[in-house]
Amino acid sequence: MKTVIGVDLGGTNIVSAVVDEKGKVAGKDKRKTLASLGAAGVLDRIAESVRAASRASGLPWKSHLAVGVGSPGPLDPGKGVVIFTPNLGWKNVPVVAILREKLGKKVVLENDANLAALGESWIGAGKGEKVVLCVTLGTGVGGGLIVDGKIFQGATGVSNHIGHIVVDPDGPRTPYGNSGVLEQYVSATGIVRLATEAGLKPPAGEPLEAYSFQKMAASGNRKALRVYEQAGRMLGVGLASAIHLLNPGMVILSGGVAGAGDLLVKPMMKELRKRCFKSHLKGLKFRMAKLGDNMGAVGAARLAWQSLKVK
Amino acid sequence: MKTVIGVDLGGTNIVSAVVDEKGKVAGKDKRKTLASLGAAGVLDRIAESVRAASRASGLPWKSHLAVGVGSPGPLDPGKGVVIFTPNLGWKNVPVVAILREKLGKKVVLENDANLAALGESWIGAGKGEKVVLCVTLGTGVGGGLIVDGKIFQGATGVSNHIGHIVVDPDGPRTPYGNSGVLEQYVSATGIVRLATEAGLKPPAGEPLEAYSFQKMAASGNRKALRVYEQAGRMLGVGLASAIHLLNPGMVILSGGVAGAGDLLVKPMMKELRKRCFKSHLKGLKFRMAKLGDNMGAVGAARLAWQSLKVK
Repeated sequence: MKTVIGVDLGGTNIVSAVVDEKGKVAGKDKRKTLASLGAAGVLDRIAESVRAASRASGLPWKSHLAVGVGSPGPLDPGKGVVIFTPNLGWKNVPVVAILREKLGKKVVLENDANLAALGESWIGAGKGEKVVLCVTLGTGVGGGLIVDGKIFQGATGVSNHIGHIVVDPDGPRTPYGNSGVLEQYVSATGIVRLATEAGLKPPAGEPLEAYSFQKMAASGNRKALRVYEQAGRMLGVGLASAIHLLNPGMVILSGGVAGAGDLLVKPMMKELRKRCFKSHLKGLKFRMAKLGDNMGAVGAARLAWQSLKVK
Repeated sequence: MKTVIGVDLGGTNIVSAVVDEKGKVAGKDKRKTLASLGAAGVLDRIAESVRAASRASGLPWKSHLAVGVGSPGPLDPGKGVVIFTPNLGWKNVPVVAILREKLGKKVVLENDANLAALGESWIGAGKGEKVVLCVTLGTGVGGGLIVDGKIFQGATGVSNHIGHIVVDPDGPRTPYGNSGVLEQYVSATGIVRLATEAGLKPPAGEPLEAYSFQKMAASGNRKALRVYEQAGRMLGVGLASAIHLLNPGMVILSGGVAGAGDLLVKPMMKELRKRCFKSHLKGLKFRMAKLGDNMGAVGAARLAWQSLKVK
């Protein structure tokens, strides 16, 4: 049996999965990233995680043909270098070269949001769709565009930054200069900002995070409901721009904030129906991501398969 | 010598060009569309124009392998049907079937903005670029995205509607429901709206159109300058969204309003520098379209060549 190993490197966890040609997971490892160890330490942990996933699969080491790695960006897939990741504190780390030496396998690297999208469109919610736009609503807002089963690549590998679509030109400034972008409204951070601006506080004992306000909204708190309406509306505004540009056949939502479900999706759809041409909404499907925890690692595995020129 | 014939169907003119494999125009015809003749009459005129271009080339009729037609949309390239064109008054016109019968050649159909982009990226300003975003600032705002020499196709053939990117969620409403979209600021119609709202009138004897205000701005009229600053800023806002999503290597501007040059481009660039990640602006080129009048017909010819599976 031939397999590849996909790795999802996150700020909190490393997930590795041994994956066959059809997307079946034959073995898995999950461990803390321990970012404080620095790049060298974390790369050691990745190599350990890959070997642990291999052992969990019960397959011989030589049956793994390649390793795909998803990392937060920006990064340069061609050179195999992670240029910068604020949450890991990395700068210009040659991930591919180092892991190739540690593992003795072909290694490919991509942006984690792109790989999550690739995984979902391969064997998740987007299976069989020609043009899939994935939007991850987490601490930030990221995205991936999959066309004909492949990651859409811009000119220099930094496409699909859907979180930086402008939804209000006079909105609040981001630390990096842009202002009024999607990420500021519909990320976990954005929800907390909107709630705080509305004078909301989490109930006693609850942390200051989006999920606390989601629960308040779900239990009927008007101000919290209005926060989710505003976030959902802005998601609709940003998606309207993306849909007119890209004409996807499916939009997949994932990430913690997407867990708010209808609180977010209803105002989003209301905005989209107002803004989009019928020709763009007709037949356009909206889905929640299905792969959960495995999404990134499965996508990384898919990329590894594609790097071997296997369909 | 083998050639194809490209046709650009516009509200005012029909342009047909006999084009060889390298993009050289061997013969051309241009005539009024006469939209008032209705679909049947205009399709007759297209066929006449194609035959006239053939005669102008001096080449035998059988040397033309296929015909490409660009039309205002929305349209269905797969079915070869123009679904709706407000400025021609067409509804569900089977252009490909009718022209195939009239001409006895293979006929392919595409959106005119996509074909203009295809032409420019083939032998115009975008030659050799991997990802080219073309933005036409005319009566409305249209666009085309070319990736690896081909038109980016969404799920249902209605991608690249860059004019409908939202640049201000609370901006004025369009007749079709959306509001605050790029087209409302930086099209000829949008410029006239902004100027009128600013209390501007064209000088005596000048028509109420964008070019009149462009001349006022060029000669230093402050209010007119501010109109172009506002339009340029909004163009920057819309392009910032598109650039973060698509990561093009080149943006090509065309159309009458783009003739304002620096009046528009300077505030656009100022906004882009404020909003875009360095990774997205680095190496990104901005160009004016080069093919002029032939842009659409050359792009239609390129599509005809591609339909014959010739590179």
